[in-house]
Amino acid sequence: MSYNTFGRVFRFTTWGESHGPALGAVIDGCPPGLDLSEEWIQPFLDKRRPGQSRFTTQRREPDQVRILSGTFEGRTTGTPIALHIDNVDQRSKDYGEVAKAYRPGHADYAYDAKYGFRDYRGGGRSSARETAARVAAGAVARAVIPHVRIRGWVEAIGGDAIDPASFDADQIDANPFFCPDPAAAARWETLVDAARKAGSSLGAVIACEATGVPAGWGAPLYAKLDSELAAAAMSINAVKGVEIGDGFAAAALSGEQNADAMRPGENGPRFLANHAGGIAGGISTGQPIRLRVAFKPTSSILTPVETVTRAGEATEIATRGRHDPCVGIRGVPVVEAMMALVLADQMLLHRAQTGR
Amino acid sequence: MSYNTFGRVFRFTTWGESHGPALGAVIDGCPPGLDLSEEWIQPFLDKRRPGQSRFTTQRREPDQVRILSGTFEGRTTGTPIALHIDNVDQRSKDYGEVAKAYRPGHADYAYDAKYGFRDYRGGGRSSARETAARVAAGAVARAVIPHVRIRGWVEAIGGDAIDPASFDADQIDANPFFCPDPAAAARWETLVDAARKAGSSLGAVIACEATGVPAGWGAPLYAKLDSELAAAAMSINAVKGVEIGDGFAAAALSGEQNADAMRPGENGPRFLANHAGGIAGGISTGQPIRLRVAFKPTSSILTPVETVTRAGEATEIATRGRHDPCVGIRGVPVVEAMMALVLADQMLLHRAQTGR
Amino acid sequence: MSYNTFGRVFRFTTWGESHGPALGAVIDGCPPGLDLSEEWIQPFLDKRRPGQSRFTTQRREPDQVRILSGTFEGRTTGTPIALHIDNVDQRSKDYGEVAKAYRPGHADYAYDAKYGFRDYRGGGRSSARETAARVAAGAVARAVIPHVRIRGWVEAIGGDAIDPASFDADQIDANPFFCPDPAAAARWETLVDAARKAGSSLGAVIACEATGVPAGWGAPLYAKLDSELAAAAMSINAVKGVEIGDGFAAAALSGEQNADAMRPGENGPRFLANHAGGIAGGISTGQPIRLRVAFKPTSSILTPVETVTRAGEATEIATRGRHDPCVGIRGVPVVEAMMALVLADQMLLHRAQTGR
Amino acid sequence: MSYNTFGRVFRFTTWGESHGPALGAVIDGCPPGLDLSEEWIQPFLDKRRPGQSRFTTQRREPDQVRILSGTFEGRTTGTPIALHIDNVDQRSKDYGEVAKAYRPGHADYAYDAKYGFRDYRGGGRSSARETAARVAAGAVARAVIPHVRIRGWVEAIGGDAIDPASFDADQIDANPFFCPDPAAAARWETLVDAARKAGSSLGAVIACEATGVPAGWGAPLYAKLDSELAAAAMSINAVKGVEIGDGFAAAALSGEQNADAMRPGENGPRFLANHAGGIAGGISTGQPIRLRVAFKPTSSILTPVETVTRAGEATEIATRGRHDPCVGIRGVPVVEAMMALVLADQMLLHRAQTGR
Repeated sequence: MSYNTFGRVFRFTTWGESHGPALGAVIDGCPPGLDLSEEWIQPFLDKRRPGQSRFTTQRREPDQVRILSGTFEGRTTGTPIALHIDNVDQRSKDYGEVAKAYRPGHADYAYDAKYGFRDYRGGGRSSARETAARVAAGAVARAVIPHVRIRGWVEAIGGDAIDPASFDADQIDANPFFCPDPAAAARWETLVDAARKAGSSLGAVIACEATGVPAGWGAPLYAKLDSELAAAAMSINAVKGVEIGDGFAAAALSGEQNADAMRPGENGPRFLANHAGGIAGGISTGQPIRLRVAFKPTSSILTPVETVTRAGEATEIATRGRHDPCVGIRGVPVVEAMMALVLADQMLLHRAQTGR
Repeated sequence: MSYNTFGRVFRFTTWGESHGPALGAVIDGCPPGLDLSEEWIQPFLDKRRPGQSRFTTQRREPDQVRILSGTFEGRTTGTPIALHIDNVDQRSKDYGEVAKAYRPGHADYAYDAKYGFRDYRGGGRSSARETAARVAAGAVARAVIPHVRIRGWVEAIGGDAIDPASFDADQIDANPFFCPDPAAAARWETLVDAARKAGSSLGAVIACEATGVPAGWGAPLYAKLDSELAAAAMSINAVKGVEIGDGFAAAALSGEQNADAMRPGENGPRFLANHAGGIAGGISTGQPIRLRVAFKPTSSILTPVETVTRAGEATEIATRGRHDPCVGIRGVPVVEAMMALVLADQMLLHRAQTGR
Repeated sequence: MSYNTFGRVFRFTTWGESHGPALGAVIDGCPPGLDLSEEWIQPFLDKRRPGQSRFTTQRREPDQVRILSGTFEGRTTGTPIALHIDNVDQRSKDYGEVAKAYRPGHADYAYDAKYGFRDYRGGGRSSARETAARVAAGAVARAVIPHVRIRGWVEAIGGDAIDPASFDADQIDANPFFCPDPAAAARWETLVDAARKAGSSLGAVIACEATGVPAGWGAPLYAKLDSELAAAAMSINAVKGVEIGDGFAAAALSGEQNADAMRPGENGPRFLANHAGGIAGGISTGQPIRLRVAFKPTSSILTPVETVTRAGEATEIATRGRHDPCVGIRGVPVVEAMMALVLADQMLLHRAQTGR
Repeated sequence: MSYNTFGRVFRFTTWGESHGPALGAVIDGCPPGLDLSEEWIQPFLDKRRPGQSRFTTQRREPDQVRILSGTFEGRTTGTPIALHIDNVDQRSKDYGEVAKAYRPGHADYAYDAKYGFRDYRGGGRSSARETAARVAAGAVARAVIPHVRIRGWVEAIGGDAIDPASFDADQIDANPFFCPDPAAAARWETLVDAARKAGSSLGAVIACEATGVPAGWGAPLYAKLDSELAAAAMSINAVKGVEIGDGFAAAALSGEQNADAMRPGENGPRFLANHAGGIAGGISTGQPIRLRVAFKPTSSILTPVETVTRAGEATEIATRGRHDPCVGIRGVPVVEAMMALVLADQMLLHRAQTGR
């Protein structure tokens, strides 16, 4: 069954395919009285927009968002907010070959197995183009939690990681890779360029941090904040791994090493470490929330790969069309959006339960 | 808000605290006509039961399950199945100190921040004791998908990993660590024993694999199989990381390296690799589903750690009481159960949508 | 909290206000492979469209639906179906007075109490205009259950009821009242005309029947078919009462009178009566499903009524603008749509649970 | 699919059959810090308990509730609250005949059609015994909204209604019929006694009113307060009709007659009438919420009725066993409970959205 709604009280539903006329999101459960305009949303979409450097797909989409409902005189009314983005630059003729054979690593075969047929143009529903709708919805979520600051960056491309010691937040927006380490950014330019020219692709690790989340958001178990963030991140196309705080590294530690000791602080305890990524027992501690996400390399590559046709015959396929050599780069605003959407939902749930 | 229901059409809700009179689960949406008895469920609980070796907590719980509703003459009726497990061996007096100060790495402070107060006895709701209810529910889920085989094991403890070349499935149940590599099991005996004697604790990585899942279960995006599994795994206490297939390792690959090439096979394509962990575009491909989960070391350790009291004063705390030196070990049947619960739900959703 | 999604596995979300640029629905969970086009949906919208006779509002809306996602080459793909309808004939200047004072019987005061402010133009979100989105979604639902026939009619206007003995299904579409009794239709012409000219309004009772529903859809209690239909019908603007089968009349019967006796039939039992409205114990029996719905008279009337301003001062208000003298008439296609939406959802749930 | 969870953020799930060992409810989403004990819940169960007069079933059930989780030192902790009630007085041997043939008006045939088989003992899941779990859950809901007063009564039995002019709230608990009109209570004694002696049964109309609900709870459309109450009431066994405010009577009025005019009041407007039953546009107005519910006569009667066997052969069936001659009487505490459950949920949703 296709499930395209996310969230519990702040819920959004996305729709749209890569090569349909438009895509969008409907946000239900947004509090009334918040300032909201297309001008507020657009910069987030611009950050994700393709075609801004030679390191992303050359598909040209203005990604202009329109608000079709749910606001009145510049403020939210508490009713569903419909966000609409037209698709402008589809080129369906690129996909003739894809209609006949399954691209390895892509959803093609699984789709056919599930649905019996598929919209093969640009990946249809499983295109990364869908993430535009998430980013627009995420901008609305940010308006719900104005005191929370959410910031993502690329931590590694193709296995080449930044040097944590060189982390400089001001650098993130100063290069086409959302890279906080200038030396790494320089190396990635060579790396991604080479992949692009070879028609290859590279995986990436994205990190995202939220500051300003007070202690107390989340739940002990099934909707624990870790679980909600994991579901959100893993719902993005191409994501195959998620970590909160130290993640897999914590599995190699002892209890002493992993303890986030506390000293008296001004507003609640002052923590001496943040192995837990700002979440203990599923609930925020007031420390920064830390999330890491693994994007696989996109399977759209020029090198022919062995595969089968719909009829089950052996063949090879090379993916033409316009693609991101490293889809993880544009994943940064998407991961940020998903974090904003989860946190806005949790803030409202917390308010429901506690009145605060 | 506390959310303790998981699943979309095969849904279960758990309840119970570490030191309450009992705990349990209610399963709603189970198909009618399945053979189900306490004898079917009990072996799964026995596998998770504490006190079976010196490597787990010495709390003695028989964990006898009773089915209180939803079956008639040994078969499910399609109505809610209530599973009930009595708590027998609580020792609340162990927790006086915990009432006054926050254990670092535990849920204590976050709970107080959220709820204003907490049941401090044994971690209350966030105790790993809750996982008994999941394991019982998971046994019911397995009855829904009898052709699917789900098998988990421990892959690493405290950073010491198995040798994949020595993997022997028959060894998994032959040692107290669910370890498929006899040499690693021998090393872990020394390792965990040392941690236990020192009152320390160790993290672990659990792997879990499902075979027999046909191509087609899952959804492209928000309820994609990866996302459902991630949410399920991350909802378990102490879990801080999740990977599907190659996970973070895929982020270091190129598209060529990560492609799961296909050749014609007997029933659908034959895959030449399984980097994707059996899931492409959120939908199962017919290959084995592969999941890896990181458990942090439990924060219950004898070494005093700096912390603060409820009143905000500096203090130190050492956790007495009975605890698992490596909570990840008993996580194996829990991760298996969560995988079964997700797959049963997805099977029913697939059947709803396609009639197959 | 605003909740604008309805359904469990066949779910739809509507958005849009009376005087916004557009309105629409997103359908999630529709099975793949169904024939679906704008041509299929449009006739249902046309049936509901305003301005077709002098007995409905004179607002001129073409209500042309566009499918923006979820189909490929004329068939559903299993992904979200976005339906879009432009608003064309808004006249916001009609509503100046409404901005200042609360119209009795309307949502005005309650909205302000909840949200702190409101979109006063044409009732905003609570306008009957929203029902266009339901009718479009209902047309998609009908494609899911092609063997089910759903047919509604008006049973009474302003307390003047049809004569059941004169019921003639062929008459329903032969007059502007969806009236199956020609004599009643003639009387209603006078009645509604008088109300229209006086600037008054009238309530109505709508009946709706589904045939072709097999025995077995529904659930014993919380999602019992009666309950789902009641929630669906009561979610329509202006509806204040719902009955299944004999409804309130059954409360005046004895058990003997109310028994739907059975005799052997060709496919399952042959029922000798249908007091239960085709639903016993929450589950369909194979008999026609019978639903009755009470629409109150719209509160938009020309007669001045005592009310208060937003500032709390006494005043009087008369509602200008264009309105239906009997909003229940156009409720017929809306009730039909809601019944189709509930039944499509139940069919899929039944298939999930039973494989049939 | 069986769905046994109700509510959006204050959610409860019930389980249990008429002749199983026990029944219960799990409440998830209850705010922390509320006083809650078995002593608080028990009086509500006592009000519903069978065998208290000759006018209800003679099954003897103490209906002692136990709280198994979710409280600590007499207060709710914010985690799931498990309520448990043992079944004590089952007599399964009464049901031999029911196993073989379908009781008309009962769920028997529909169950078999859906599930393929059924627990025939006492109606299994569709027994009115399940309502004990609702009443217990409803008591918890009342603790969430202490300022709301909810009071139900019987308005008519077998078509014999109270005289509204004789309404005396103090009389409701002074007779075994929850009847506010002493003269009607006297007539009903004769009426119900006659039905009981004849082995017949009678339908009933229940009214329920909530005062103290502030203006602003609810939502404009799909979760409008009317719709939530209708779903809640219609989810009770034997209920076939629901009205909010004037309900079907409103359908016979003109807009002038149905207008609830307003004058300036102390806290918000003072309403001159309450045709709307305290809900306008789906949102509470601050007036009393008024709900009416139709219970059909139970189909368990001694008079033989024509029916068919499971094998499809013609037969007759008379229902022995112990039954309520008028199941609507004990419906009063059940309808009250459902209203409390809906309002507690809406209060929390309102608080989530508005912070009030």
